[in-house]
Amino acid sequence: MNRRLRLGMVGGGPGAFIGAVHRIAARLDDRYELVAAALSSDAERSMAGAKELHISRAYRSFEEMAASESKRPDGIEAVSIVTPNNLHYAPAKAFLEAGIHVICDKPLTTTLGDALDLAETVKRMGLVFGLTHNYTGYPMVRQAREMISTGELGPVRLIQVEYVQDWLTTPLEKTGQKQAEWRTDPARSGPAGSLGDIGTHAYNLACFVTGLSCEHVAADVTTFVSGRRLDDNAHVMLRFSKGAKGGLWATQVAPGNENNLSLRVYGEKAGLEWRQENPNLLSFTPLGQTRRTITRGGPGSGSAAAHASRIPSGHPEGYLEAFAQLYTDLAEQITAKIEKRPPNPDSLSVPGVGDGVEGVKFVNAVLESSRNRSAWTAIPPPH
Amino acid sequence: MNRRLRLGMVGGGPGAFIGAVHRIAARLDDRYELVAAALSSDAERSMAGAKELHISRAYRSFEEMAASESKRPDGIEAVSIVTPNNLHYAPAKAFLEAGIHVICDKPLTTTLGDALDLAETVKRMGLVFGLTHNYTGYPMVRQAREMISTGELGPVRLIQVEYVQDWLTTPLEKTGQKQAEWRTDPARSGPAGSLGDIGTHAYNLACFVTGLSCEHVAADVTTFVSGRRLDDNAHVMLRFSKGAKGGLWATQVAPGNENNLSLRVYGEKAGLEWRQENPNLLSFTPLGQTRRTITRGGPGSGSAAAHASRIPSGHPEGYLEAFAQLYTDLAEQITAKIEKRPPNPDSLSVPGVGDGVEGVKFVNAVLESSRNRSAWTAIPPPH
Amino acid sequence: MNRRLRLGMVGGGPGAFIGAVHRIAARLDDRYELVAAALSSDAERSMAGAKELHISRAYRSFEEMAASESKRPDGIEAVSIVTPNNLHYAPAKAFLEAGIHVICDKPLTTTLGDALDLAETVKRMGLVFGLTHNYTGYPMVRQAREMISTGELGPVRLIQVEYVQDWLTTPLEKTGQKQAEWRTDPARSGPAGSLGDIGTHAYNLACFVTGLSCEHVAADVTTFVSGRRLDDNAHVMLRFSKGAKGGLWATQVAPGNENNLSLRVYGEKAGLEWRQENPNLLSFTPLGQTRRTITRGGPGSGSAAAHASRIPSGHPEGYLEAFAQLYTDLAEQITAKIEKRPPNPDSLSVPGVGDGVEGVKFVNAVLESSRNRSAWTAIPPPH
Amino acid sequence: MNRRLRLGMVGGGPGAFIGAVHRIAARLDDRYELVAAALSSDAERSMAGAKELHISRAYRSFEEMAASESKRPDGIEAVSIVTPNNLHYAPAKAFLEAGIHVICDKPLTTTLGDALDLAETVKRMGLVFGLTHNYTGYPMVRQAREMISTGELGPVRLIQVEYVQDWLTTPLEKTGQKQAEWRTDPARSGPAGSLGDIGTHAYNLACFVTGLSCEHVAADVTTFVSGRRLDDNAHVMLRFSKGAKGGLWATQVAPGNENNLSLRVYGEKAGLEWRQENPNLLSFTPLGQTRRTITRGGPGSGSAAAHASRIPSGHPEGYLEAFAQLYTDLAEQITAKIEKRPPNPDSLSVPGVGDGVEGVKFVNAVLESSRNRSAWTAIPPPH
Repeated sequence: MNRRLRLGMVGGGPGAFIGAVHRIAARLDDRYELVAAALSSDAERSMAGAKELHISRAYRSFEEMAASESKRPDGIEAVSIVTPNNLHYAPAKAFLEAGIHVICDKPLTTTLGDALDLAETVKRMGLVFGLTHNYTGYPMVRQAREMISTGELGPVRLIQVEYVQDWLTTPLEKTGQKQAEWRTDPARSGPAGSLGDIGTHAYNLACFVTGLSCEHVAADVTTFVSGRRLDDNAHVMLRFSKGAKGGLWATQVAPGNENNLSLRVYGEKAGLEWRQENPNLLSFTPLGQTRRTITRGGPGSGSAAAHASRIPSGHPEGYLEAFAQLYTDLAEQITAKIEKRPPNPDSLSVPGVGDGVEGVKFVNAVLESSRNRSAWTAIPPPH
Repeated sequence: MNRRLRLGMVGGGPGAFIGAVHRIAARLDDRYELVAAALSSDAERSMAGAKELHISRAYRSFEEMAASESKRPDGIEAVSIVTPNNLHYAPAKAFLEAGIHVICDKPLTTTLGDALDLAETVKRMGLVFGLTHNYTGYPMVRQAREMISTGELGPVRLIQVEYVQDWLTTPLEKTGQKQAEWRTDPARSGPAGSLGDIGTHAYNLACFVTGLSCEHVAADVTTFVSGRRLDDNAHVMLRFSKGAKGGLWATQVAPGNENNLSLRVYGEKAGLEWRQENPNLLSFTPLGQTRRTITRGGPGSGSAAAHASRIPSGHPEGYLEAFAQLYTDLAEQITAKIEKRPPNPDSLSVPGVGDGVEGVKFVNAVLESSRNRSAWTAIPPPH
Repeated sequence: MNRRLRLGMVGGGPGAFIGAVHRIAARLDDRYELVAAALSSDAERSMAGAKELHISRAYRSFEEMAASESKRPDGIEAVSIVTPNNLHYAPAKAFLEAGIHVICDKPLTTTLGDALDLAETVKRMGLVFGLTHNYTGYPMVRQAREMISTGELGPVRLIQVEYVQDWLTTPLEKTGQKQAEWRTDPARSGPAGSLGDIGTHAYNLACFVTGLSCEHVAADVTTFVSGRRLDDNAHVMLRFSKGAKGGLWATQVAPGNENNLSLRVYGEKAGLEWRQENPNLLSFTPLGQTRRTITRGGPGSGSAAAHASRIPSGHPEGYLEAFAQLYTDLAEQITAKIEKRPPNPDSLSVPGVGDGVEGVKFVNAVLESSRNRSAWTAIPPPH
Repeated sequence: MNRRLRLGMVGGGPGAFIGAVHRIAARLDDRYELVAAALSSDAERSMAGAKELHISRAYRSFEEMAASESKRPDGIEAVSIVTPNNLHYAPAKAFLEAGIHVICDKPLTTTLGDALDLAETVKRMGLVFGLTHNYTGYPMVRQAREMISTGELGPVRLIQVEYVQDWLTTPLEKTGQKQAEWRTDPARSGPAGSLGDIGTHAYNLACFVTGLSCEHVAADVTTFVSGRRLDDNAHVMLRFSKGAKGGLWATQVAPGNENNLSLRVYGEKAGLEWRQENPNLLSFTPLGQTRRTITRGGPGSGSAAAHASRIPSGHPEGYLEAFAQLYTDLAEQITAKIEKRPPNPDSLSVPGVGDGVEGVKFVNAVLESSRNRSAWTAIPPPH
């Protein structure tokens, strides 16, 4: 029987993309209960947001929250930090010092000094510190890592990693778009633009999967969009430990690429290829053999992938979201009944008992036709 | 602010695949709280299962649960029924009569009489009844439906739908595999095998997306595996309302297909194609123009899809599961700390503060190299 | 040393699509010399066409050609018949009776009586008769056939074949388009439209690859386009010898499909899938193993495929056409020089000596940069 | 009416891969007649090879050939040079000086001095010189170039080009494999290995399609296989004219990649992507719109692609080879009849008159079933 941990959250009020993602992620496997929050640096918005999200203990600031929660017998055991890059360090430090485990969005900090200080604090306090390089949670990424660590590729020679987007092809930050604004603002993002935002994901993925560390880089970092204050493209040549070499390309100005993260690794004995846009597949080719496609949970998929899976093979992972959509639409329909109001029309696209009746009619007609030398057989009209 | 509904569950104890899926689906968007359950027809297992799953009110049978919950002021407002096919009717009927909204797994029932009786009961009681044909919850399926209903295809002529699997290629039911056993047992599945299990999903999807009803079928239903008691393959020719025609193929004996559900619809003006194995994409070709790929949330994706989406375009829906995996692994690490025991080694594959330090070093080295005419620049070794 | 056969052609004058294809096909491997032709039922056009195509002996009719060529010591040894469907029988019969081998476009004839008569004549005369179901010439189709014949799939259970096009979605034949006109005209195409034009290709492919014969069909043939005189869609359920079953779908009214011919075969032990739109790949999944991709000439590809290949693995077969394009563009440039006229501007897109110089500069600069710690190294400007 | 040019060949005797490809390419569109050759530096093999290939005038050396042909009234008008890299310069020079147009395999030469000398000679003599960077002949490559030149991408920012193979992952040159031997031998290949062999193709493709010239490179060239004398991997960062940047990766040690040449170009307004392994497709995404797939000859495909096409849209270019295979197999069958010997068994996989009879039976049975309410209808057994 799994323990449910008491969780707090800093940042990520209603409407923030990444805050909502963290809350869903915490809820999915039922291992956390979100009980405390300082959702905004604006105290009023922080209080209102917590109420809207059914979070019982709301705080006006993260400092207050760390101080108070660490004293309660039922205080939070862990905290999620989902603020912009420049606001990771201070709350992380505060909660660690208060003896609370930390889950923090990436990149860790905007300066190496802050990063090292956090590393030291984690070590001193003996706490868990998770950095949400979320792509490492994909079953097929775990699978790739496992296969390399068990030697299926032989010594690794080549690592090509790319993170290619197009959403900053134009000066979007000048239109008031919030995501673009803070990501191109050195004060909030630190010295790196695309490089920090997505280049670090690509870099982490390459290191995570191969187990190698990178020793040298030669780089060409560019700002293509006129007037932009941080880079929007980075070409990097990489030299890893043990003689491996590679290339990293991160860009946000390549039209036609929404979120094209890909990793290719080649060793002396085999090659592996993975693309985030179809994450349930891993392409694997032993030298001199046919290319094979390993699927999540399918043949050739091992224990690391199984540990990270919830559903059987064949269903892509979005299966759970599609299933959830029915529950959510039904919640709206049921709530509308209870509240005696009309439901949101978009929530009505859920199969109901009538669809069930049609399904039974279909089965009956098919079986009858097949028994009757495949004669055309009528399905009674919907009633 | 969304109301959280009080939910009960019938069937789906620990270990059952579809029960776990329903619970995750109910939890994902935080619209339900699971407070009551009769998880098994075996009373002891029912009680133990509820405890393991943190469900506060456990019942020894669904009859007891319906009677008791309908009298409590804080009784459940909705119930999920996730039992085998032959056990849908009785609990659905019981909860409907008790005034409780029902969410039921498909197919609705194994006989038309039962199905019609439930339809009548739903109507009489004025309750919500959801049937979890879960594929209708995919954003791109909603998108396809919306495009057809607004006339982007013109009058529909052709509907090809397939649900192709391979897991029953051999007589798996003779090995004691539970999923295979009940699905090939007429007593528990009713008169249809593959046809009922997956053919009804395909049929529902075709009708859901096109808005057409099917009027006639000509079918050839086959049992390929010797000794199997229900069909494992169905070829069906379809004639729909308004002159549309189509083909449906459902099989569980086609090696190389895990869960290959696909739908293709062609009208006088355009064609649409969707495959569940890459559900975030919808292929759309207006006659005489180039084929285009509509992505979830991307250009050309409309309001019905947006209603069913949680994350921005480019991230496949498994993104949430990958994110959740990090939270779940961290829950295990934190719990182990609290319980002073070693964590499950599989849970250790989560980036931590050290990875954050490496990320900052990488950014610094890349920026330095780029400033320095792309000179090779060292990354300090991991400390 | 390969003999070069003397070849004649009936039908297929300049401008006819399939005539040009037959001539290229005959030329590609240098096994034929086209020396005689009756290219048109119009005697004048027949003579002019032969001259344009450098064919030395032109005839006013196929009857004259058969009579004359069969008497010459250097007469043709084989003839290609590339006329519309209704004009296959007479010339085929004439050349066979004249002792000349025949290569004939499909479908063989428009009536069974004619077909059987040709079969009898071929047998009686002891001649070679080739029917250009051209898809059987793909290396990966040969590979699939070989794998099934050697038992890699075990007994075949399911055969799904489709040929899906969109070019007749509208009443194109009413616009004067020649290809559409004769294909929808019962007098020239016989009793079948799409069924004869592309359904027979699909059917032949299914039988060719599996080695099974089809024993029964149940079919639904439709004309969707108002006013069309022949079918434009056929749904067919198939029962093959040895208990195999299948589905065939042929249509010319599915927007978004240019020439989508595909074949899927599933046996007790494995499955195979092939699509003409990417013909160099064959997908093969042994039950319970990962899906593998066999490439033309690559690992897992056998002798039947090798027999049908001209180039090494990795190059798709269009490689030869791309190569030929350079030769053809250069022919135009050279001819223009000889004829002292400007060349067709489209022929100028061929790399020349200047591109070669640039290539050498690039190699030199890359090697210099790499030797010099990857310093940025200039490439001298084009001169 | 097209003139047929008299062509000679230097190098490429029977058995040489690239020589056979050049001959097929010259033959495909019937614009050349191969009448003279010096196929080998070994005079005896040169004479024997010419006889085997039906080439009427054989020479013992290219010098002799240039001297003799330039004097004949019916001498060759053009020559193909298909020798190893180090043997391009001398024959190219000789034929140019003899006033004969030259078609030469890439790379042009192994030194810049030789390259510049040839360029000067071409200019002085006023002759055509074609360098067979064959990938530029693909219709979709021409299409990409046309779209960029007409401004559909806006100013180009990013150019990513890769040529990835795996055939030199092991020290194949030590096994006696001829292709590997000369390509890893500095004496025959010049100073560059993979870089010269395939990197130059990638570079040429990038420049050809974008019309930009590259001004600076920063490179990391590697030999991964121990004992190999030339590079087998090159990472290159590129800076083009007009501010565009890019990356080039050429390798022959990446398991799972047979011949993976790809090009991606991104401008301010749109992006283009092309992969040689499926060369009939071009992916095009205008910023903020859906991704569309342009097919050879399909909607959106323009005049440059049409100029380079032989067959209608939908048929991949390998269609012609498949067609040719039937002709070639039939040539073998017919020749065997003439020579009264058994044919090569592999040549028997060609549909014949019996298949035509089966096709007619199939059509008849399908039409009868459809007329008869889709009743199962027998196909008479093969006779």
